[in-house]
Formats: sequence, structure tokens, C-alpha cells
Amino acid sequence: MIQTDICIIGAGPVGLFAVFEAGLLKMRCHLIDVLPQVGGQLSEIYPHKPIYDIPGYPTIKAQELINNQMEQIAPFEPTFTLGERVDRLEKQADGSYIVISSDDTQIHCQVVVIAGGLGCFEPRKPELGNLGLYEKQHVHYMVKDPEKFRDQTILIAGGGDSALDWTVYLADIAKKVTLVHRSDSFRGAPDSAEKVHQLAQQGKIDLLMSHNLIALTGSEQLEAVHLSNKQKEPVVVPADHFIPLYGLSPKLGPIADWGLAIDKNAIEVNTVDYSTNVERIYAIGDINTYPGKLKLILCGYHEAALMCQSAFKYVYPEQKLSFKYTTVNGINAF
Amino acid sequence: MIQTDICIIGAGPVGLFAVFEAGLLKMRCHLIDVLPQVGGQLSEIYPHKPIYDIPGYPTIKAQELINNQMEQIAPFEPTFTLGERVDRLEKQADGSYIVISSDDTQIHCQVVVIAGGLGCFEPRKPELGNLGLYEKQHVHYMVKDPEKFRDQTILIAGGGDSALDWTVYLADIAKKVTLVHRSDSFRGAPDSAEKVHQLAQQGKIDLLMSHNLIALTGSEQLEAVHLSNKQKEPVVVPADHFIPLYGLSPKLGPIADWGLAIDKNAIEVNTVDYSTNVERIYAIGDINTYPGKLKLILCGYHEAALMCQSAFKYVYPEQKLSFKYTTVNGINAF
Repeated sequence: MIQTDICIIGAGPVGLFAVFEAGLLKMRCHLIDVLPQVGGQLSEIYPHKPIYDIPGYPTIKAQELINNQMEQIAPFEPTFTLGERVDRLEKQADGSYIVISSDDTQIHCQVVVIAGGLGCFEPRKPELGNLGLYEKQHVHYMVKDPEKFRDQTILIAGGGDSALDWTVYLADIAKKVTLVHRSDSFRGAPDSAEKVHQLAQQGKIDLLMSHNLIALTGSEQLEAVHLSNKQKEPVVVPADHFIPLYGLSPKLGPIADWGLAIDKNAIEVNTVDYSTNVERIYAIGDINTYPGKLKLILCGYHEAALMCQSAFKYVYPEQKLSFKYTTVNGINAF
Repeated sequence: MIQTDICIIGAGPVGLFAVFEAGLLKMRCHLIDVLPQVGGQLSEIYPHKPIYDIPGYPTIKAQELINNQMEQIAPFEPTFTLGERVDRLEKQADGSYIVISSDDTQIHCQVVVIAGGLGCFEPRKPELGNLGLYEKQHVHYMVKDPEKFRDQTILIAGGGDSALDWTVYLADIAKKVTLVHRSDSFRGAPDSAEKVHQLAQQGKIDLLMSHNLIALTGSEQLEAVHLSNKQKEPVVVPADHFIPLYGLSPKLGPIADWGLAIDKNAIEVNTVDYSTNVERIYAIGDINTYPGKLKLILCGYHEAALMCQSAFKYVYPEQKLSFKYTTVNGINAF
């Protein structure tokens, strides 16, 4: 069993910063995240997008912010369980908790901090009757490893940034890329849309606007995707892989069953210390709600700082917390 | 008269970040600060010190943070009145305010935001009867321009970082530096203390530990500083300039008289929007207080963001505020 002071559920920017604030108070952290890497949405959904509202950074790419935060917390030696979803909590007689994951990883801690962003992201799926038949091998709701598609024939569906960006990226890798979108214009960034149109004009991809998905066919493995359009001509596109990129839909997941006060998919906290209605459980970042709440990373940073001041009493019940500035004392690594 | 949407009192890191959050909502800001430059304490007191707890910066020098923040807010074209203290507010019939400075600069605004840090810093002064006689020309509570002391004979008093750092710095510039400290050990950083002791051993400065100030003498201009010690030998040190560096003592100043709810030198606010008990007046950063308050720059950033959402209604009473992410919309400069 993993032993730690604070178990942080969610390794996005706010969960990561909580490690720093905890470390200043000599509290150790273990982080657990359903995604296979740290960084939350920033690394998973928009790693290359610039963010403009991190104080002190006129602009910074999402992944770069995460990298910097990892460097910032390195002295405090956080530990991680990645690619596993937290399933349940078991309260112990002494008030501490055991956090248990979908893979039965067990983490014993004094304090649980939920920094789960918008929750577990689940992909929005197209409504196709036999999707389940091919889901395991030939249908992909995220592109985790682009090399998987080298020299393959693929069909991407969607009109947002993910669909556009992966179309451009995979055009160079796959044998053949077809992009299908139900509408006649894209929702994604105009310059990405322009690139996709150029690739289509150059014959490097096939682009089918105003087409709808009807069915997947193939015995054993996926062979083709069937489409419809306004002219009612049936279209059959051969495909080894089908990549519907319709975005991710946030779900609270198992957290919803832990007896926490929930308001519209967010956990209610008080703003003195961002504690929930359950003792020793805190919620920080986009997953919490309170009067005036703004879902901004910079607000989560503040919440993490105040939370740690409060969590200290559970980790060091016999010590008095003394507040010190890093400009005066620097950082004392573990 | 200067016209603006929001008048921000205090141009430290939190006041500066408020310009950014206001700018995203199309609100213009004018900042006023008693110090001659932007950056508050960071630029005035510890520009070269590293800060470790700005999220996303493993370490950043205080002045560098301020420079980055100035770059971040440049698109929103803030305007400044520097080197003037705000003296009073005049409420107008329509609810707006005129902010009036010590030099009678007048700023008309819809919203007043107090981001005054620890208030107006006033130097701690030694208790010497005739200090006032020399204060104007020959006594200095801060070193604003080191060149002023080139080839001069100076006496520095104090045992903290400022006294140590300036002793080291001015040793190369002044004709003669004497450092006087009442105790037998320094409060400042050990490596700075070590440097000072080395300079004394090398004969590059005179160091008088465990000496107390008794009097200043000189007709017309300062000529000498008189000291006492345990051996009760009178010590007279010739000096053109006397630089007592006993630290700065924060005072709320005129703000204390504006009818705001004050608790222990800080302005009480609510945490929904960091508004004070007076309509259209907000307080953010180190100058405010609320349950759980931490005097951290990163907390002030959060407060600035929530404040702007609330201030919007006074600047655009007929518009509905819509919240947008910079990752989606970027920044629209003025």
C-alpha cells in the first residue's frame, strides 16, 4: 500500500501546484489520474495551445506550463499513479483514508484532495449501432500514439480542433486519410481549417463535408465506413481505423457517490479552506463550486494554497503551523 | 482630469494583474502609486530576490516577474500616475468617484480598486533628537541612486539584508563606508554577513558591532555620527551621509479615513468579489482581509480576477457579462 500525507485526485495544473504548497508545509503528496500522463486537460486536449492568463506569462503553451510546474514541484518528490481511475474511498478508524483505484492500487493518506478538473473525461461517441463490435481495436476516441496509424487507411470524423489538427498531422503518416464532417463549415481554428482545405485541394487527403455517418462494416475487423449526404448518394469509404473526434464530455464519475454536496456537477466547498462537507476531503480547481467561482487555473492555484494551510492540522495534529515566505526562507526540499 | 473605468491604487503585482483581467472585459485602468516606479515592494524592496511560489515559475526574480506582468498587460494600455500618494476620494452624484492625489492629480472612474499591498511604507527611524535637522539632505532611509554616494564618506546603520547589501554595494563606490549595528550578530542572510565581515577584515569598510547611535553633529551639514558601546568609550565617526536602514513600516495612510471596514490594518472584504463595505470600492492583495486570508501574490491574482467580474456591472451597467477563455478567444487588445 502506498503511504502519503495527501492523496491528490487529478494531476492537472491545480493538483500539481497543491504539491508545491503542501511541500512548503512538509506534507508529502501522491497524485492519481485517469489520464496516462500528468497535466490534465492541458496535456491531453490542448498541449500546443497558448494560454494568456497565467499571471506573469504574457503567453505560454499549455504543455510548457505543465513542464514548468513539474520542475517547480520536483524538490518535493511527489509520486504518481497514472492511467487509473479512483473508484472508492475507505475511511479508517483514525480518520485517515484509503483511496482505491480501478486497478486496485491502494493509497493510505491523512487528507484527500479532489483536483479532478471537469471530472473523468469520456469521449462523445457517434450513434452507430455496431460501434461496439470494432471499439476495441479499430475505433479510437483519442489519438494516443500516432505511429499506430502509419501506412493505415483511416477515417476521421469531426469538425473541431482535434479533428482538424489530427487530420493535418496524420496526413503525413497514414497511407490515406479521409475527413468527414456533418456540416459545411468547421468549428476549429480558421488557420487549421485552411490547412485541411489545402491538403484536400492538393489531393493529400479526402475531405467530405456535409456527410453523415450511417454504419460501419467489416467482418472480424473494420473494413469500411458508410456515409450519407444531401444528394442521397450512398458513399462507402474503405477504412482500417475509424477515429471519431467529437470532443470529450466531462463526468464526475465515482466521486458523485462519496456523500459530497454536489451542485450542477461540481463539489460545493467553503472559501475559507476549500473543504467539502466531508471532513478531510477538499476540492480545488474546476471541480469545485462556491459563490463567485471562476473556472480559471489561476483561481485553482489560490485554492490549493489555502487548502494546504487547513489540511496541515490533519497531517501534523500536534504542530502549530507557522507561515513563511519563500523569498525569506527559500525552499527546503524533502 | 484623467478619465478611466477603474482606478487602481497600487501598482504592485496584484494591481498590475487586475489590469489584465479588466482588459479581458474591455475595462480600462489607471494606476496610481506612491512609489516612483511600478512593481510595489518587489521592485522597491527586493528586486533581485528570487521568488519560488509563483505558479509555473520554479524561480523568478522579483523584478523579472514585474517586467513580465508589464508585458502581459501592455495590450490593454494602462496609464499610470507614479510617485504620488492618493489622498482622498470624492463620490459623484452618479455613483462614480474622483480619486485625488497628494499632488492634486484627479482621476475620474466608475470603480476604485485598492491594491495597496501593506499600505504606504514609511521608514523606521532611529530615535535621535536632531535627526530632522539633516533629514532633507544628509539622512537617507532608502538608497534610490547609489551614484549619489560616490566618493562620499557614509555611515550605514542596521543589521538586516538592506544594511548588509548596501554596505557591500557602496564599498566600491563611496570614499569610506562604516557599518554600525547595535547587536553582535546580523539578522540578514548569512552569506551577505560573511561578505561584510570579509570587507572589514580586508580594511575596505569599518565595521562597528554592538554600537549604538547617540547623536548626529555638524553645522549646516552633517559632519559626524556619535556612537556608544559597552566599553563606554565615546566613538565619533565622520560622515557626509547617514543611511539608517531599519526597514520599512507599513501604514494604511489616508485609506484608513474612507469609511472602509478595517481589521488590524487590513480592509475587510467578502470573498465573492472582494468588495468592501462601500459600494464600487474593492480591495485586493495584501491590503485586504477575510477568513483564511494568505498574504501571497498568487492569492491576489485570484482576487483580481473575481473582482473584475463584479466591477463589470458598474462600467457596463447595460451589458451582460459573458465569460470567455483566452485559450479559445486569445486576447483582443484595445
